[in-house]
Amino acid sequence: MEFKIDKEVFLKSLQKIQGIVEKKTSMPILSNVLLEATESVLYVTATDLEVGMKSSYPAEIITSGKITVGAKKLYEIVKELPNQIITFSTKDNDWVEIKCGKVHFNIVGLSSEEFPYFPTVKEENLFEIESGLLRGMIERTSYAICTDDTKYNLNGLFTKVEIAPDGNQILKMVATDGHRLSIANGALKGTAGPELLKGVILPKKGINELKKITDEEDGILMFGFMDNSAVIKRGDSYMVMRLVDGEFPDYTRVIPAANDRVITINKEDFTHSVRRMAILSSEKFKGIMLEISATDIKISSSNPELGDAMEEIDVNYGGEPLTVRFNARYLLDVLAVAETEHVDMKFKDELSPSIIVPEKSESFLAVIMPMRL
Amino acid sequence: MEFKIDKEVFLKSLQKIQGIVEKKTSMPILSNVLLEATESVLYVTATDLEVGMKSSYPAEIITSGKITVGAKKLYEIVKELPNQIITFSTKDNDWVEIKCGKVHFNIVGLSSEEFPYFPTVKEENLFEIESGLLRGMIERTSYAICTDDTKYNLNGLFTKVEIAPDGNQILKMVATDGHRLSIANGALKGTAGPELLKGVILPKKGINELKKITDEEDGILMFGFMDNSAVIKRGDSYMVMRLVDGEFPDYTRVIPAANDRVITINKEDFTHSVRRMAILSSEKFKGIMLEISATDIKISSSNPELGDAMEEIDVNYGGEPLTVRFNARYLLDVLAVAETEHVDMKFKDELSPSIIVPEKSESFLAVIMPMRL
Repeated sequence: MEFKIDKEVFLKSLQKIQGIVEKKTSMPILSNVLLEATESVLYVTATDLEVGMKSSYPAEIITSGKITVGAKKLYEIVKELPNQIITFSTKDNDWVEIKCGKVHFNIVGLSSEEFPYFPTVKEENLFEIESGLLRGMIERTSYAICTDDTKYNLNGLFTKVEIAPDGNQILKMVATDGHRLSIANGALKGTAGPELLKGVILPKKGINELKKITDEEDGILMFGFMDNSAVIKRGDSYMVMRLVDGEFPDYTRVIPAANDRVITINKEDFTHSVRRMAILSSEKFKGIMLEISATDIKISSSNPELGDAMEEIDVNYGGEPLTVRFNARYLLDVLAVAETEHVDMKFKDELSPSIIVPEKSESFLAVIMPMRL
Repeated sequence: MEFKIDKEVFLKSLQKIQGIVEKKTSMPILSNVLLEATESVLYVTATDLEVGMKSSYPAEIITSGKITVGAKKLYEIVKELPNQIITFSTKDNDWVEIKCGKVHFNIVGLSSEEFPYFPTVKEENLFEIESGLLRGMIERTSYAICTDDTKYNLNGLFTKVEIAPDGNQILKMVATDGHRLSIANGALKGTAGPELLKGVILPKKGINELKKITDEEDGILMFGFMDNSAVIKRGDSYMVMRLVDGEFPDYTRVIPAANDRVITINKEDFTHSVRRMAILSSEKFKGIMLEISATDIKISSSNPELGDAMEEIDVNYGGEPLTVRFNARYLLDVLAVAETEHVDMKFKDELSPSIIVPEKSESFLAVIMPMRL
């Protein structure tokens, strides 16, 4: 195997898979990147058995073949090479030779035979979806994905298509960690298959990688399913992520329907206030108190070792007074992704789940469990 | 005690002492900042008993007095306050009240009586020194300060004034960790006192803080000594650092005099090459090899687990071949602070200390011990 490739192209290809390769693994091959020189392109593939990515790049192929090399070391080497054409070739015993100008590396590789199978994607099974729509929906929900590995069915983003009464398809993404829940909605223009009509759980790591793809540029992605995996195609890259095998809880039962005490509050003012009050709340619980009266909210916190803090923000409420306590972190996470000037907070009582929505928004809703007083 | 102060002024005053207060200490008062409201200014003081800083700031003093407060928490609080006038006042039992707009904090303080004594500086003992001169000399030497706490006499920058044959004063700064040594020279315009003629060791942490002061702006600093401490005055700020109580080794004996094999090399090319070769050298020893011939240097590294690397750089040498091995980190540290297009490397043989100097420079010289082959 031997190919010549532009340094910047090779560097970009290796940079793209750094989030996927495993740093510490009992299977050394999963720390490696698979390089396949076939006809006129170079395929660059990485997988951790849960999330995989395969992309093709222009290269001058002198002899076709394949090899795997430590993905992190190869990236470090290519990053420091001069900005010239790189010649990459395999030697005996899976050694690899890299030449660039007067620079010369010989590094140890591993046979491509050990590398896990990467599925061949059938393009006809994919449908179109807007990159910007996915990006926005992932931003508004992924912060609430559960990080406790033992609750495996919550370690992902529940993704489902519902058919509205007018026949339009609505894409829903839902995340929860048991203390809070976040839902984003968006209009889906393509035709969803049976998997999305039933609903799937996309794994957390796959969502992080998908977010990076949507961050690169706007436009159209291809999305679909095969072999218990979701497949995303963008240009010459495929990403595959194994669906989380579990039952997502019935989130519709968590969303309170009778929260009729509604307070509209300026998002910036509220964010700054919560951040200030969180300074004195304990590292662990981050509890702050909201005392809501007809004309203002008094926000406060206290810590026996440090002291206490309080401030007031004017609001238009007019209802019965209400005192409720929240984890400041949970409020800040929602406020960070709400894009409107004001947010609506909807309460039932002191201990029932509370709702935060951007003012007049139908596409984003967050539920937070209050803390016990 | 009560004063009003502009938020940005208060924030800057607290930001400036964050590097000095101790994060984890058996003496809680050393984590605190001393605030003294006297006549028309606020004094803000911090110390860890080795390095201290005291600055004055404009404030509207309503009642004079003093108190100490946790420096890190107070900084966090002030940072999040709205950009308005802050009212700061003391209450019973060393509590402190901070008001700003509609925001209200009560925090626990500690009596100023516990706070360590901060010396009163006599300005007539100080001489002038250029901020830019100090900054450059610290940059070119501080990387070589020993970080091993047990070698306390190497945990600082040896600073001395020598009188040149023409009567001019030369300020010298020297750092070494036993494996390498760095010397910077500069012309001193003021009149040095007996301490500098004898030589003092400025502690590492004090040097870091002094570097920050010189980074702020060019101009003149006042420098001097009292009570086994160095004193630096800039504008309304004093910094005091206790001198390291030890004997600095006779560095003049370490500088080789007979290194007559001189190689001039392009700094950028050499830096990139050393960085590339360091990728394959082991994490711990970072050893790379230089094989010097009449017309080029072959730079190489190898690692039994990863492979090997090699490249050549043209040089003008013409002497006998020489092979020498270095810690790549030590070379990179010197190259990073050499400001010329080329550097001269001067060797005696494979194992004797080697010299690196910026081409034609008299103000900077580094010595590096080779590694055994």
